[in-house]
Parts: sequence; structure tokens; C-alpha cells
Amino acid sequence: MDVNQQRLRRDIEENAAFGAIDAETGRGRTVLAGTDANREARDRFVDRCEAAGLEVEIDAVGNLAATWVPENADPEAAPVAAGSHLDSVPEGGIFDGPLGTYGALEAVRTVQESARAEDLERPIVVVCFTEEEGTRFGGGMFGSSVATGRRSVDDALAVTDDEGVTVEAALESIGYRGEGALDVGAWDAFLELHVEQDTRLENRGVPVGVVTTITGIAHATIEVEGEANHAGTTGMDERTDALAAASEFVLELESTGRDRAEAGEGTAVATVGKSRVRPNATNVVPGAVELGVDVRDVEYETMEAIVEEATATLERLEAERGVETRFEREIDVEPAPMDRRCRDALERAGAEAEIDTLAMHSGAAHDAMRVSRVTDAGMLFAPSRDGLSHTPLEWTDWEDCATATRVLAGALAELAGADEG
Amino acid sequence: MDVNQQRLRRDIEENAAFGAIDAETGRGRTVLAGTDANREARDRFVDRCEAAGLEVEIDAVGNLAATWVPENADPEAAPVAAGSHLDSVPEGGIFDGPLGTYGALEAVRTVQESARAEDLERPIVVVCFTEEEGTRFGGGMFGSSVATGRRSVDDALAVTDDEGVTVEAALESIGYRGEGALDVGAWDAFLELHVEQDTRLENRGVPVGVVTTITGIAHATIEVEGEANHAGTTGMDERTDALAAASEFVLELESTGRDRAEAGEGTAVATVGKSRVRPNATNVVPGAVELGVDVRDVEYETMEAIVEEATATLERLEAERGVETRFEREIDVEPAPMDRRCRDALERAGAEAEIDTLAMHSGAAHDAMRVSRVTDAGMLFAPSRDGLSHTPLEWTDWEDCATATRVLAGALAELAGADEG
Repeated sequence: MDVNQQRLRRDIEENAAFGAIDAETGRGRTVLAGTDANREARDRFVDRCEAAGLEVEIDAVGNLAATWVPENADPEAAPVAAGSHLDSVPEGGIFDGPLGTYGALEAVRTVQESARAEDLERPIVVVCFTEEEGTRFGGGMFGSSVATGRRSVDDALAVTDDEGVTVEAALESIGYRGEGALDVGAWDAFLELHVEQDTRLENRGVPVGVVTTITGIAHATIEVEGEANHAGTTGMDERTDALAAASEFVLELESTGRDRAEAGEGTAVATVGKSRVRPNATNVVPGAVELGVDVRDVEYETMEAIVEEATATLERLEAERGVETRFEREIDVEPAPMDRRCRDALERAGAEAEIDTLAMHSGAAHDAMRVSRVTDAGMLFAPSRDGLSHTPLEWTDWEDCATATRVLAGALAELAGADEG
Repeated sequence: MDVNQQRLRRDIEENAAFGAIDAETGRGRTVLAGTDANREARDRFVDRCEAAGLEVEIDAVGNLAATWVPENADPEAAPVAAGSHLDSVPEGGIFDGPLGTYGALEAVRTVQESARAEDLERPIVVVCFTEEEGTRFGGGMFGSSVATGRRSVDDALAVTDDEGVTVEAALESIGYRGEGALDVGAWDAFLELHVEQDTRLENRGVPVGVVTTITGIAHATIEVEGEANHAGTTGMDERTDALAAASEFVLELESTGRDRAEAGEGTAVATVGKSRVRPNATNVVPGAVELGVDVRDVEYETMEAIVEEATATLERLEAERGVETRFEREIDVEPAPMDRRCRDALERAGAEAEIDTLAMHSGAAHDAMRVSRVTDAGMLFAPSRDGLSHTPLEWTDWEDCATATRVLAGALAELAGADEG
């Protein structure tokens, strides 16, 4: 099966015009859920799906499902789905989301045009989830949370953005507040194509990654409380400097992350990404620091071990430095292994097309993570130039886009086919 | 000579009503230069000075000088001055500034009422400097900078606050834009009474501190630049984490400060008071950190040594962690030793009144620092409960206020007298 690279490129480039920003280098866009740019992107996607003979449904939170029932398929059979999202972070790139969404549509068109179309027994659904990035309404993987039953429709519709606009009002304003919730659990399988956002494929010269596991994520907020004091009149031995204590924590967490990554398969990461100091004046000994901590791994036990070492560090700092600390775990998501059947289908599709694939974990969360909780899910990656994403510098060569889409098409055909899957 | 504690207390308490804030505990006030609260405080101070027979002058930047010419004094002799400031930080305490200003007035009234008044050969000037705290117009020690010739009147009048209001407009609006600049260099000597803002007097149970040296201050802004990256997809060995590098710097500076304090007389301090992380998101490896550094000591060489070690640490971090760093020195003030003659006068006044005094450095900057560059200056401290200041919890017992004022009165009488000084 030959993917039409020009058609795929046109889809992604025309989609890139919605919410396009002036970037000095690269091509950027800002497409937040429920905005005009998002409406334009959705309108065009619906149009392209219908042009390919797919029937589009919209659920209550704006998730889009475009179904193709192949000629010899059972319309009632559990469908095979593929897709991603069309929203972006502010000033994000043009591939993160759209490659997986239009890649799925292109895969369907490729299968439609091939001889294998006749063999398919299941419908194929092209999916676009709402608000994957979580930029406007928070949380991330918003639409897939509703479609997998993790979040109720009513709760989701009532969520507000910073200006107090509800999801419901935002979706109604762009004409994409549908009814009910997409039932992901009824799908036979789901595949998501995405840009890697890292340099492993690029460094190895392999065009396609097949994801083994999406790492789990623990987020915690840490408060370190010392005593704010005059930086001139408070002697070195009279201080309870919250920033010095917090700095020890930052270095300890980094060291723990390094040790765990070395001890395992190099997949563990531990980061202090956020730090706020109070009162934050050059001539005042810091009285309090708030830290935002991110811990990930493919093994939940490793994540737990890192979190335990972090809390032990805080206890030590309380004893040694006289600070008070609080540790609040805010996100706690277990790793999501991708389904063996989906991984096999992707690897076989690569082999059949003589395209090398590399088994690899995903350090970033994706809608496939939510989907994997309720049905079989798989993911494949296309290379990211310099590993960059969430920036106008994000780039994946058009040929790489087409190559990954070809693997996706092969896997979809297998999963929707008679016996091969 | 007996200070009138009730009169001094009434002065400070009535002054505390201007700009008073509702504080849950303690007594706070917000008196920024050139505001209504500042006008009220000035009006009352002028009134109290005139009631004591002093003649008040106002200079171009609102510095107030109230002169008393004792009966047998030469009106043309170089005067002896004493005073402080009436402005406060936002939500500051009621003693920081007013104790030194009204303490000087009370000292004059005490001398006027004593037999020593007849022996005085020099006029005594009670001074209130404008904008010592630097909260509204920046910089700090604003009025004394002009009165000591460090800053020109024209430059000073053109300085603007955050809303673009000039010093000139602010002072005109409250009726305190006078003419010329106070000529501090023409004074024979200057004494400033202030709250200690530390716990040394309290811990030692000594009621009055005589300042040996006001520490010098170096302020620097440091930029640490790494590479912002996805906290999930960027392996531990692929990162250039600006916050981890900055954390090493914070701890190194703390350690250097401790070492230098131990090696010397415990006066050296080194602080990172400010830290701003970019982009400051939990799931992003920090790309850049800006740090605000404060270094002080009574010895300029020690300050220099600390700054040198700090820049060496930055070089090491560049080599070891691949970050880029910038070091920009913004404030560089040499230590200000207090004049021997003024210190002696204060210590003798304490001894005569049977009041213990403790020789000590000042870690905070004061107007006396500026004054010491152009004439003989001395400072004395009253105890601060728990060392607190710049908060409504700032407190000095009324008896301690009176005790320190008694020492000030004795020293002023000696300095303005015939031969004793």
C-alpha cells in the first residue's frame, strides 16, 4: 500500500494555517479548544473525512469520530480506531496532534485505495479527541478522559477556563457540542501516530518507533517553609533559608533520577520544573519555596521508589535545616503498557513494507494512555528533528510522515482484517 | 539628663497613625514618600519641631532639617545633627525610622531642659531624610544621597515611580518640594538612632548598641542558561537543567558565606534572595534561572573574596553542566566605618548614665552610611524584639526607646559642647 505523501502534506499544511503565528524560524500555531482556530481546523477535518466517505459523529465534549464501513465489513462489528488531536499548546508546532489525526485519515484512504479493502471485516474509525494538551481547560487528555469513562460528561462540560467560560459554552460557540460520549471501550483496538518529541529515532536513523509503554506520571507540589529575614542583619548561623533547603532537594531529586535511570533501562526521569520563592527579594533571606516535581517511568515501582526517596530527603531537610515541608501528590498515573497485539500489528506492518521500526517507550502522555485503560491500544512515533516539540521549531520530514503513515495503514488493515490480527 | 519617655512614646504613637494598616498582630503602617500619609507624618513632625523652638528648612527633595541654636552657641558654627527617616516599607513597623527621628527631637528637648544646654557651642539639627526605604522611587537612602552630593538634585527630582510620577511632582503634591540641597558635609557630626533589626542586643540583654561599621553591600544578578525540554521525553543524561545548576550555586554561596563568617568575626553574609525560573512549568526541564545575590561584610576584601568564589562556581558549572552563565554586579558599596569620635561620645554617654552599650556592626544600610562619606557619623541601636523589622510585628519596648534616646542626648550634648568632644 502506498501512502499519498502529497495529500497528507497538504492536509497537515492546510491545517497549519488555522491559528498560525508569525514565527521567526519554523512554523507555529496556537489552536486552543473551542476557539475560532479550533472551529476552522475541525470544519476542515470533517470536510476531509466526508470527502473520503466517512460518517462523522460529534460527542458532547466535541470528540470527533469518522467511521468508514468497508464494503465487506460487518457494520456492527467492534471497529478499529486511529487518531490523535488537533488542538495545540500556545505557539506550538504543526505536527503534534495533526500528524496522528490526518495520518489516520490518510491511512484509511490508503487502505480504501488498496486491494486489502475487500478483506476488511471491521469498520475503521478516524478519531480527533478534544483538548489533549489541556492548555485552555486544564488537565490534558480531556476528550479521551470523557470517552473512556474516566470523567462524566456533565463534569466535563462544567469545567471552566481562566475567564470562567465553560467547556459547554466554548464548544457551543463553535458548533461542536454534540451529544453523548464516544464509547472507546466498544472499539476493538486503537492506534495513535504521533511525533516522538525526542531524538532516539533521529540518533539511531530509524524512521518509525513502536511504543512499548507510556511512562506513568507522578506530579507533586512541595512546600519548603523557612523564615524570611533581613539578608544583612541575619547572620549565617541564624537563618532558616528556604531556598537553600529547596536547592538541596532539587539536587537530591536529580541525583535519584540519574541513579534510577542508570539502574533501569534509562527510562526513569525526575524533574523539578517549577520553583516559586517568597518573598523573592534580593535582600531578604527566602522564607518559603514552592516546587513542582515531575517523576516518570515505565515501572510504577521505580516511580514509587523515587517519590519515597524524595519524601525522605524532605524529612532529612526538616531535621538538618529546621525547615517545615509539605508534600502533596497531585497527579498519579500508572504506566500504560501498549497492547501486545497492537505492537505486533505495527511491527509486522513495518516488516511487510520493509520499514525499520524501533521498540521504545514514550516519556510523554498521549490520548492512547487513556484509551489503553479500556481497550487494546498501540502507538507509533515519527522522528522529531532535534527532539523539539511544543515550539514552532518542531519538525518531521514529509517523507517520515508518509513512512509512519504507511506502517499505520498496514497495521489498521491487519487489525480490521479477518484472521491476521 | 532624663528623657521624657511619655512624650517620646506619644510622638511615635501619633506618628504611627499615619498610614496605619489593620494588622492581625502588631502595629503596622505604610508610609511611602510623597503620599498623603507621608504629608501627615511630615506636617506633625514640623509642628513638633517648631513647638520645641526649632527652625525647619525643607530642601528640594523634601529632606527636613530643624535647627536649634542654643543660647550660648555660635549660630555659624558647624552644627551637630541627628535623625533618621519617617517613610516605611509597605506594611512596615512603627519604629524603623520614627524612633531615630523623634528620638533626635526628644534628645534635643532633653538637652534643652537640662543644665548642659548652657554649655553648648554648636547648633543641633534634627533631620528627617526622604525615602530611606526606597520603596516608591527605588534605590534606598534617596534623600541622604542628594544631601551628601552623591546624586544631583535635578537627577533626583526626575526619578519616577512605577506609575511614572516624578519625585518632584510627588513632593509638590504634598507641599514638601523645597529648594537647594541640605549640606551634610557642613555638619560637624551626625548621629542616627535606629532599631537593631537583629537579636544580638536582646540575646545579650544589653539595651544599647554602638555601631562600629555598617557593612558594605554587593548585589549581583546571575543568569544561568540551560535548555528547556520536555520533562518526560528528555532522559536524565540528555538535559542541561538550569535549575539544578542554579541550585548548586545557591548551596555553594551559602557554604562560602558560612566559611567566611567563621573565618572572620561572624559579620560576613551571602544570600540568594531571589530566583526566577523559566518557563517554570512542572513538566518542563528548566531552561533558565535568574538569581539575585546579596553579599555583605564589614571588610571589603571579604566581600570581594566571596564574589570571586561565586564567579568561580559559575565557571565550574559552565564546565561541568554545560550551562551558560552571566554575572552582573549591580550594587557595590564599600563598608562604612563609623567615626571614632562619634563612637566614643556614644559610649561615654552610656557610661555616664550607667547604661550598658555593646559595640556591634550593622548588617543593614542606613542614612548614616551615606553621611559617613562626607562627615563624621555614628549610629546607635535599640533592641528589636525577636530581631523582627519591616513587619507590623516589629517592636521595641518604650523603656528601651527612652534608654537609647538618653544615650543619644548625652552624646549630642558632648559633641555640641565645648571641649569634651
